[in-house]
Amino acid sequence: MKIILKPIAGSVTAPRGFLASGVFCDIKRLGTGKGSNKGKKRDLALIFSEVPAAVAGMFTTSRVCAAPVKVSLPRARGNRARAIVVNSGNANACTGIRGLRDAREMAAVVAKICRVPAESVLMASTGRIGVHLPMANVRKGIQAATAILNNSPENAHHAAEAIMTSDTRPKEIAVEFELGGQTVRIGGICKGAGMIQPGMSPTGARPASVPSGGLHATMLCFLTSDAAIESRTLQSALTGAVANSFNRITVDGDMSTNDTVILLANGIAKNPRLVAAKNRSRSGDLATFQAALNHVCLELAKMIVRDGEGVTRFVTVRVSGAKTAADAEAAARAVANSSLVKTSWFGGDPNWGRILGALGYSDAVHIVEEKIDVAYSVPGGSKLLYALKKGQPTAATFDILCKTAALKEFDLHINLNLGKAKAVIYAGDLTEEYVEFNKGDVSDPASLGG
Amino acid sequence: MKIILKPIAGSVTAPRGFLASGVFCDIKRLGTGKGSNKGKKRDLALIFSEVPAAVAGMFTTSRVCAAPVKVSLPRARGNRARAIVVNSGNANACTGIRGLRDAREMAAVVAKICRVPAESVLMASTGRIGVHLPMANVRKGIQAATAILNNSPENAHHAAEAIMTSDTRPKEIAVEFELGGQTVRIGGICKGAGMIQPGMSPTGARPASVPSGGLHATMLCFLTSDAAIESRTLQSALTGAVANSFNRITVDGDMSTNDTVILLANGIAKNPRLVAAKNRSRSGDLATFQAALNHVCLELAKMIVRDGEGVTRFVTVRVSGAKTAADAEAAARAVANSSLVKTSWFGGDPNWGRILGALGYSDAVHIVEEKIDVAYSVPGGSKLLYALKKGQPTAATFDILCKTAALKEFDLHINLNLGKAKAVIYAGDLTEEYVEFNKGDVSDPASLGG
Repeated sequence: MKIILKPIAGSVTAPRGFLASGVFCDIKRLGTGKGSNKGKKRDLALIFSEVPAAVAGMFTTSRVCAAPVKVSLPRARGNRARAIVVNSGNANACTGIRGLRDAREMAAVVAKICRVPAESVLMASTGRIGVHLPMANVRKGIQAATAILNNSPENAHHAAEAIMTSDTRPKEIAVEFELGGQTVRIGGICKGAGMIQPGMSPTGARPASVPSGGLHATMLCFLTSDAAIESRTLQSALTGAVANSFNRITVDGDMSTNDTVILLANGIAKNPRLVAAKNRSRSGDLATFQAALNHVCLELAKMIVRDGEGVTRFVTVRVSGAKTAADAEAAARAVANSSLVKTSWFGGDPNWGRILGALGYSDAVHIVEEKIDVAYSVPGGSKLLYALKKGQPTAATFDILCKTAALKEFDLHINLNLGKAKAVIYAGDLTEEYVEFNKGDVSDPASLGG
Repeated sequence: MKIILKPIAGSVTAPRGFLASGVFCDIKRLGTGKGSNKGKKRDLALIFSEVPAAVAGMFTTSRVCAAPVKVSLPRARGNRARAIVVNSGNANACTGIRGLRDAREMAAVVAKICRVPAESVLMASTGRIGVHLPMANVRKGIQAATAILNNSPENAHHAAEAIMTSDTRPKEIAVEFELGGQTVRIGGICKGAGMIQPGMSPTGARPASVPSGGLHATMLCFLTSDAAIESRTLQSALTGAVANSFNRITVDGDMSTNDTVILLANGIAKNPRLVAAKNRSRSGDLATFQAALNHVCLELAKMIVRDGEGVTRFVTVRVSGAKTAADAEAAARAVANSSLVKTSWFGGDPNWGRILGALGYSDAVHIVEEKIDVAYSVPGGSKLLYALKKGQPTAATFDILCKTAALKEFDLHINLNLGKAKAVIYAGDLTEEYVEFNKGDVSDPASLGG
């Protein structure tokens, strides 16, 4: 099956029937800490569907999770939704009962102005932890955001800007494809630069493949589509797409309290409705939708790693030949999160000793030093430059290995040669800039929970 | 029971019947990479007991472990030993069959010159991975080291210097105490500054409490005692002491392929022989010995963290109130290894948001945000300054919290308020200097496996 995905301009307003806006309402006014933007940078985003949309969500599996996660999660279960409201500058996490009330009120304010049910509005927050939302500002921001909602690419871009914290640039994508003769679109925006190793699930319960140790500064992603698709089918598609994208990235191994992905699909494209269980004959269409969603999520996830705090190199860690899937996962995450491996990437140093070290202490049960191959390639490349074969250095000279490790992006191939299981993790390096950025600003009380 | 431990001068030659030396034999000649010392810094150490000694050992549980670990481990099981030979500059790890042969030869050369059985000589290595030992140099070094063996504190100091890699200073300790009317001594030296989160066991098999993710640049520790003690009792005492010291520290969460602790006890003090199973009446003596050994190991372990690569702050993470021991362990390690928590320590920033974040994503099964207390104190202090009570910020001002977090050493108290289990981890911060030091030197092929 060949799937033709056409990249198109814009993001969350590219699919028909979606409006967006991003405004400044001074939510960051409480300080100038991490993630704050000097001047009047946008800090409140709104995404709105003109008709009720199927909704699916993926949420942090952290046992300390933020109020908006607690409130949005049940609203994403089998319901139809109309809007997503998002603020940056304040995570509304560790804020107790008042935090839950504030999250619900964010939705209620949108619902009242837009005349939709409060339960049909989901919300997300990112920023400082442990500080209550300045609700007067939030209310004003929502009023301003609703007043200027439209379907222009500019407004979608403003929404992408408004969800940023320590990101250096907004992250957007949109694609177009055909389903049963109809043109269907998926668009998305996301943010995240530090506290990045998401482990999300639809229920907040941690599945086996999800890391303990994940993302912060939080990653948020909001996706829209005009596809007609049944709610549970949509959730299943999103769960699959996130498992192979956002849940496979790491910047610093820290999972956030706020990680959220929400997908709205409003059906305006009028394609034959996608339903996983019933329409077996339309599995082709569903596969196409899944491929498109996978592509959108993976591209957005990679943008997060590339824009990670202090990140100078993007490394795809590809473990193969593991005896079990759990071993592959554990081996890939140990390498991708090793401080010593990550600093060697920063230095452009093809240090396979540290890679073997990380494999040795990983939770992978089956590791046999004498069987391990380690190789480098250009991103996605099939021509492998081996540093190590069967646990022993190859004839590849240090100069040649350094050339590959000096690339801004490369693939690291680790074959354990013990079985058929594989795992991929997309990772950034560990740099002085990361440390400098995250060491905090003790002159600023607002950085307390950030 | 009150135990009187008298700190005394010196280290491994303080107990009677032990000789030591440290020499330069240019093992690092292959490069100027990490851990190399410019000029003629010592790189081969020898510790020798004038009479056969009971021996106990703890070794890395990494599944990629170095040749000297593979060879020394069986020699530390229930045997009597005479000597330990150690080199720095080359880890003899990932060196295949030849590496095993080289490790055995190191012992054989010592054995031949000193006229002791080859099996009674244990060995350890630290330094670059994946490079074969320059055996001609090692042989010359051993010859020089045996020729100058003596029991002076100077020689012990030279041995402590000879095992250093990225350490900025040698690490030594000795104590004296009474057992059954006899004066008994324990002395020790250790090294290690990066790749530090040891997870050692007597067998190389990983017990439940051992981290996956531990120490590198390797930690090595060599202990001597003139106590009379049965071999299995000695091993049991060492296992207990290491579990509460070296296995409870972390610098960068990376466990090494070479981590080793070896303890020789030669019985020259002529105390009533300590045997765990039989002499129940002498449990008081055994408890005294255990307390002394615990003290020696913990002090040496703390020296490693304080001298950790780039470390500017020493933080004792004390988790209490966990529902299970596994939860306490997981919670403490998640906080102590979080890049975001560690960078905030560097900045002197009392950022409890990141601490809650790490608790949330930790492998601890039972975490209830609304129950968590977070407090600071001076090292070992009982007067707690609470930042968070029951998941909510206290009235403690940011200025006051900053004052505690600005200390070079402080305790971080986390009470989960769900049970009675506790765990302690001794950790360093994450600094730009760590990154700078570890990013590697691509101008130097010898850094390839280091």
